[in-house]
Amino acid sequence: MSQNSNITDRDNALFEAGIKLGALYHQFTGSPVNLNTVQSLERAIEQSISVQPFVEDITVSINRDMVRSNLNDEFGYCELEGRMLDVRIGVRYGLAKVEVALDFDAELEYPLMQILSVE
Amino acid sequence: MSQNSNITDRDNALFEAGIKLGALYHQFTGSPVNLNTVQSLERAIEQSISVQPFVEDITVSINRDMVRSNLNDEFGYCELEGRMLDVRIGVRYGLAKVEVALDFDAELEYPLMQILSVE
Amino acid sequence: MSQNSNITDRDNALFEAGIKLGALYHQFTGSPVNLNTVQSLERAIEQSISVQPFVEDITVSINRDMVRSNLNDEFGYCELEGRMLDVRIGVRYGLAKVEVALDFDAELEYPLMQILSVE
Amino acid sequence: MSQNSNITDRDNALFEAGIKLGALYHQFTGSPVNLNTVQSLERAIEQSISVQPFVEDITVSINRDMVRSNLNDEFGYCELEGRMLDVRIGVRYGLAKVEVALDFDAELEYPLMQILSVE
Repeated sequence: MSQNSNITDRDNALFEAGIKLGALYHQFTGSPVNLNTVQSLERAIEQSISVQPFVEDITVSINRDMVRSNLNDEFGYCELEGRMLDVRIGVRYGLAKVEVALDFDAELEYPLMQILSVE
Repeated sequence: MSQNSNITDRDNALFEAGIKLGALYHQFTGSPVNLNTVQSLERAIEQSISVQPFVEDITVSINRDMVRSNLNDEFGYCELEGRMLDVRIGVRYGLAKVEVALDFDAELEYPLMQILSVE
Repeated sequence: MSQNSNITDRDNALFEAGIKLGALYHQFTGSPVNLNTVQSLERAIEQSISVQPFVEDITVSINRDMVRSNLNDEFGYCELEGRMLDVRIGVRYGLAKVEVALDFDAELEYPLMQILSVE
Repeated sequence: MSQNSNITDRDNALFEAGIKLGALYHQFTGSPVNLNTVQSLERAIEQSISVQPFVEDITVSINRDMVRSNLNDEFGYCELEGRMLDVRIGVRYGLAKVEVALDFDAELEYPLMQILSVE
């Protein structure tokens, strides 16, 4: 199987950036978390995804207000949900550099993944 | 947050296709499987990912030979690994249609995700 | 590392039953789903967990009403959440047979795992 | 649904301990990792599982030799696999305290979960 010859660095950079967001989301959502452990989870997610190919930079922040309001009254923790995540990833492939994001879109009520910029 | 205006349907189609492959991989690898259950897992993965935005078609096949050789002698099952997966996904975004794949690359010893074609 | 000699079949059956519920929950929650695909996901989860050691029977049902009310307006699907799951698992270990469950507890607002019976 | 009256604290402690090991395993295996990021992943797993009900103590260590030998030649990382994990969890339920473990069993070639002690 070989790639079509008209596929560019830009194409591959965007494809790779999508892979990283999809991977991050489905690997780490569901993790038990509370306000004391949220920071170690953020750092571990950043470090984990940063080892994947073509990732140049990544920041992960988890919305503390959503964690707080989701804590179970009886047990004092919640699960990491996609809508709690605010992620920026920079991917470089060959000469192309792209920036993508995952953010909760309140209007769509959806954790939206978007392309921010392409160079 | 708004997208840069120079981002095209082609860009978004490739980004979305990457998201689906990353999601599929990190959602379903690790699932217990044997030769009797491999088909129901293939169909469930296909159906699950097919409900995500912009997916036009998807086929998932799990390598039976790898499953067979990975079965634990004592317990008779194994876990779904990325290298067992052969996946094709077609994504349409606006006027762009792309085809992407996940396949085990024996030379790289790596479950490789690739862009197959862009229209 | 060897087990303490005072550990019984009953102990191991309950430990194994817990493992299966924890595995099921964290493997499959997060899977994209809608009302057309919910049944294939139920069957795949049942079949996947059934291959693990000591599982004698398993039924998985996903609450359609919760799926329906969680469908995203724009994209028409949702993610499998723990509270949507109604699971019964029977585990046999040596002479012991136990029945465990995962059910949404509305009062605790929590997907509760419980021991139903021990023989 | 109510629990059978002959179910003891010991029963529940072992059931809960199993849940934690199954959850840990299926939540975090598959995470991308290399030798630079392995420690942050260990700490995040410990902290994440420690917030769950009835967990009294937990230690997670990831086998560096296995990580090193699994690193992909081309891309320099691997995925966390169950057999890389060495986990001890102490669970208290009522008057019962149990200690359980996940360890790679070289003879069975299997990441074995076991009850170590019950008090």
